[in-house]
Amino acid sequence: MTLRARLHRELHIGSWPNGKLTLLNKLVVWAILAALGVGIVATEPNIREPYQHEILIAEFAFGMIFLLEYLARIYAAPEREGPESDFSKRVKFMVSPIGLIDLLVVLVSLAPFFIANAAVLRVIRLLRIVSILKFSRFSAAMREIGAALRERSYDLLVCATLAFVLVLLGAAGLYWVEGSIQPEAFGSIPRALWWAVITLTTVGYGDVYPITTPGRMIGMLVAIGGVLLVALPTGIVAAAFSDAMQRRRKAMKKALEEIEAKTDL
Amino acid sequence: MTLRARLHRELHIGSWPNGKLTLLNKLVVWAILAALGVGIVATEPNIREPYQHEILIAEFAFGMIFLLEYLARIYAAPEREGPESDFSKRVKFMVSPIGLIDLLVVLVSLAPFFIANAAVLRVIRLLRIVSILKFSRFSAAMREIGAALRERSYDLLVCATLAFVLVLLGAAGLYWVEGSIQPEAFGSIPRALWWAVITLTTVGYGDVYPITTPGRMIGMLVAIGGVLLVALPTGIVAAAFSDAMQRRRKAMKKALEEIEAKTDL
Amino acid sequence: MTLRARLHRELHIGSWPNGKLTLLNKLVVWAILAALGVGIVATEPNIREPYQHEILIAEFAFGMIFLLEYLARIYAAPEREGPESDFSKRVKFMVSPIGLIDLLVVLVSLAPFFIANAAVLRVIRLLRIVSILKFSRFSAAMREIGAALRERSYDLLVCATLAFVLVLLGAAGLYWVEGSIQPEAFGSIPRALWWAVITLTTVGYGDVYPITTPGRMIGMLVAIGGVLLVALPTGIVAAAFSDAMQRRRKAMKKALEEIEAKTDL
Amino acid sequence: MTLRARLHRELHIGSWPNGKLTLLNKLVVWAILAALGVGIVATEPNIREPYQHEILIAEFAFGMIFLLEYLARIYAAPEREGPESDFSKRVKFMVSPIGLIDLLVVLVSLAPFFIANAAVLRVIRLLRIVSILKFSRFSAAMREIGAALRERSYDLLVCATLAFVLVLLGAAGLYWVEGSIQPEAFGSIPRALWWAVITLTTVGYGDVYPITTPGRMIGMLVAIGGVLLVALPTGIVAAAFSDAMQRRRKAMKKALEEIEAKTDL
Repeated sequence: MTLRARLHRELHIGSWPNGKLTLLNKLVVWAILAALGVGIVATEPNIREPYQHEILIAEFAFGMIFLLEYLARIYAAPEREGPESDFSKRVKFMVSPIGLIDLLVVLVSLAPFFIANAAVLRVIRLLRIVSILKFSRFSAAMREIGAALRERSYDLLVCATLAFVLVLLGAAGLYWVEGSIQPEAFGSIPRALWWAVITLTTVGYGDVYPITTPGRMIGMLVAIGGVLLVALPTGIVAAAFSDAMQRRRKAMKKALEEIEAKTDL
Repeated sequence: MTLRARLHRELHIGSWPNGKLTLLNKLVVWAILAALGVGIVATEPNIREPYQHEILIAEFAFGMIFLLEYLARIYAAPEREGPESDFSKRVKFMVSPIGLIDLLVVLVSLAPFFIANAAVLRVIRLLRIVSILKFSRFSAAMREIGAALRERSYDLLVCATLAFVLVLLGAAGLYWVEGSIQPEAFGSIPRALWWAVITLTTVGYGDVYPITTPGRMIGMLVAIGGVLLVALPTGIVAAAFSDAMQRRRKAMKKALEEIEAKTDL
Repeated sequence: MTLRARLHRELHIGSWPNGKLTLLNKLVVWAILAALGVGIVATEPNIREPYQHEILIAEFAFGMIFLLEYLARIYAAPEREGPESDFSKRVKFMVSPIGLIDLLVVLVSLAPFFIANAAVLRVIRLLRIVSILKFSRFSAAMREIGAALRERSYDLLVCATLAFVLVLLGAAGLYWVEGSIQPEAFGSIPRALWWAVITLTTVGYGDVYPITTPGRMIGMLVAIGGVLLVALPTGIVAAAFSDAMQRRRKAMKKALEEIEAKTDL
Repeated sequence: MTLRARLHRELHIGSWPNGKLTLLNKLVVWAILAALGVGIVATEPNIREPYQHEILIAEFAFGMIFLLEYLARIYAAPEREGPESDFSKRVKFMVSPIGLIDLLVVLVSLAPFFIANAAVLRVIRLLRIVSILKFSRFSAAMREIGAALRERSYDLLVCATLAFVLVLLGAAGLYWVEGSIQPEAFGSIPRALWWAVITLTTVGYGDVYPITTPGRMIGMLVAIGGVLLVALPTGIVAAAFSDAMQRRRKAMKKALEEIEAKTDL
């Protein structure tokens, strides 16, 4: 097996039939996570200033790693199956979503040498991890969860609508009742929406809260509604998963019986 | 097909057999959402004052749209099935709940030209959306959820009663323990109820909280009770949904088998 | 049917085979709820002082109603089945738990005329409602929930132990890390426990919270643990309910089939 | 039966076939809990100072109990099954994890006489309880929960990853939007992470919160994401438990049928 073929197998994700990532892909995932970590920590002034030099070196090293990986992938692209010429296979990889994300990550990693304060941009690296995970067993679980949620999408839409109506009524109610007492917090419905969402999700910062008796009654209703609006989607999701697991089991049982029936003949 | 027949099919919701909304109905839903949005945003003084003119125009335009739709519905009403005369069919629509909600929405949309500060009134438009959704697939999901909850209504009532008792005991406990220390927050059971509900729902604003050791012990119990009172109804709801989905599957399987049995004959 | 027999049927809860409360029992439940409401509201100084006279009258009236009901129950007690004499049946009722709760409620309702500030005592009336509900369909649901929870009691115990360990570790951690920085909040493990419980239950008042980086890391772990410790018992409870519902359905199906098999013979 | 054999049976956990702890083991559990309680309470200055003497005595007594138990276990170790000599069995116990934990607890309990402020160390006693519970019915429930979670580990990993991404995006967003307005709270991504985690877990202390409109919008999204990230793992866990219970029931049914089939022959 040539070096190029080996590179292809190691880098082009999803090559292993058991859904496990290859060693090189694992290393790339760890490099991205490390680069992400350095990028996050480097936004902290207390760390950035004393270690400015070290951070720059690390950023450059990560940029080089991603660049190398990108070039290796272009180099190994012709190993893909297909009748096209080597050149067209390479171009095809470069304009594919994964190729573009790869390029983006390289550019973003080398950006601090050109653009100042590119910290937020670098969160784009998350996309890169997602693009690798897309081919692993992780992705199968993700698809299953997505399918289970999509199957009950109308039920979840009902929950979302109920939440929306409750938030709107709560905000309108407090605007009506305490709008003139606490104008800063409830002086308009958009302002009151902040309070309504933070209460319905049971976060409850306590920066704004009703202080009159009718306002507190509305507040209690929204808070109780919040508990129900956790219970409802959770119940729906639980039922969807339970159902999906049962169907899979039955499908597997049926497939097994068919195999047995065939071997009997 | 006459224009009137087409109008009827487009406007009278639920005409499509697949449960999808017709184009005109979709437009009406979006118009209501837009009108709702404008109404909400217009309560914000920082926006209302500079854009007073634009908001007035938008409100008027929405009012006109809803008026037009209302008149078109009255015009198309005779297309309904039934032996009554055109006039009696139109009156029947006008006094039906949907007709009345329609009229209300028109009046409410044109209200700011007659009444000052009608913002809260306009939340009534939500009703209008509900009246359209009533005939879509959304509504089937809503009915299913309602049915699942109704089936376990006694279980949920037990949860509500437990919550009620826990809130009452918590409020009475803190009134007893900290009533004289924090009279503003716990000086009476109704005052302490605010704290109890906000704690049990795990919102926890932090505007009032116990400060003595016995008060904090009661607070911990109510907080722990809050976690259980999320778990209990969620579990019940999940089981109800799971059960409903299984029954539906079995019913479908049985119906299928019956059809097969018939075709065999 | 004599008056005494009617009284017995109306008052002695659980007489109806369909699990519904009799009219008189419903009235008693409402009277207790009303008395409870008056008792709660009367703790509020802003209401107690101006309406002192009205509250006293209401309290007296409720006391009389409960006294009357108690006497009527004693009078009707001989209608119970059994070979004992009328007198022994009456004594038996008076010393039964329900009879004693009845007496307690009467005494508590008339207490304000003898003892000052008996507000907290009157929460005992809740017991009375429970004693009535014990015989209704409500109670069947309560028993089912209890059975489902008891069946998974070891799983729930594991959750409780995990929560206990997490709370203890969190409190010990913050005592260790921030005990000298925020002595008022974390100066000892018992003090830090308040923070740990309020965080793990995701209430989060915000009266105490970590301010150092290691303290915040512990805080994040406890907060994340809180989400898991909601998910775990909820999942267990959901599975228990789902299982209980399925078993009941199968038992009903089996019973039905047996009846059909008998009728076939 | 010799005293040594009895000691062995009483002390070496898991000897009873019904999964119940022996009397001596129960006493040891209670002693550990009591020692843990004394250790926790003793960190409170208001209690430690006036009761310094009593606490010292209690600590010493607990230390002696654990020492005695440790010695008794070494003494009874030769009763274990196996062909080794008494001495090698004793050494084997002493270097086993349980033996080492035992020794550690003894040392930790007697530590305050040598080291000052050893409070945090003593939480190690929790390990001791776990090591006893390992052999009881409690442990079976723990294994079942662990198995159910492990089976869905990829689904739960997806949830954790989603939570991680949401926290990161939320923190990066607020750093971007409010980093210069509230530098203390959002001046770097690591600082903003504290807010993001406390919001996503719906704890919501309220020590830091967004104050601008775009910041609040991000805050709302994180809060709503928090509700979904409770619903998702809960649903997965519920389905896993439901599935585990069903499989166990089927396995038991099958085993029963096999037994019946054998007895028929």
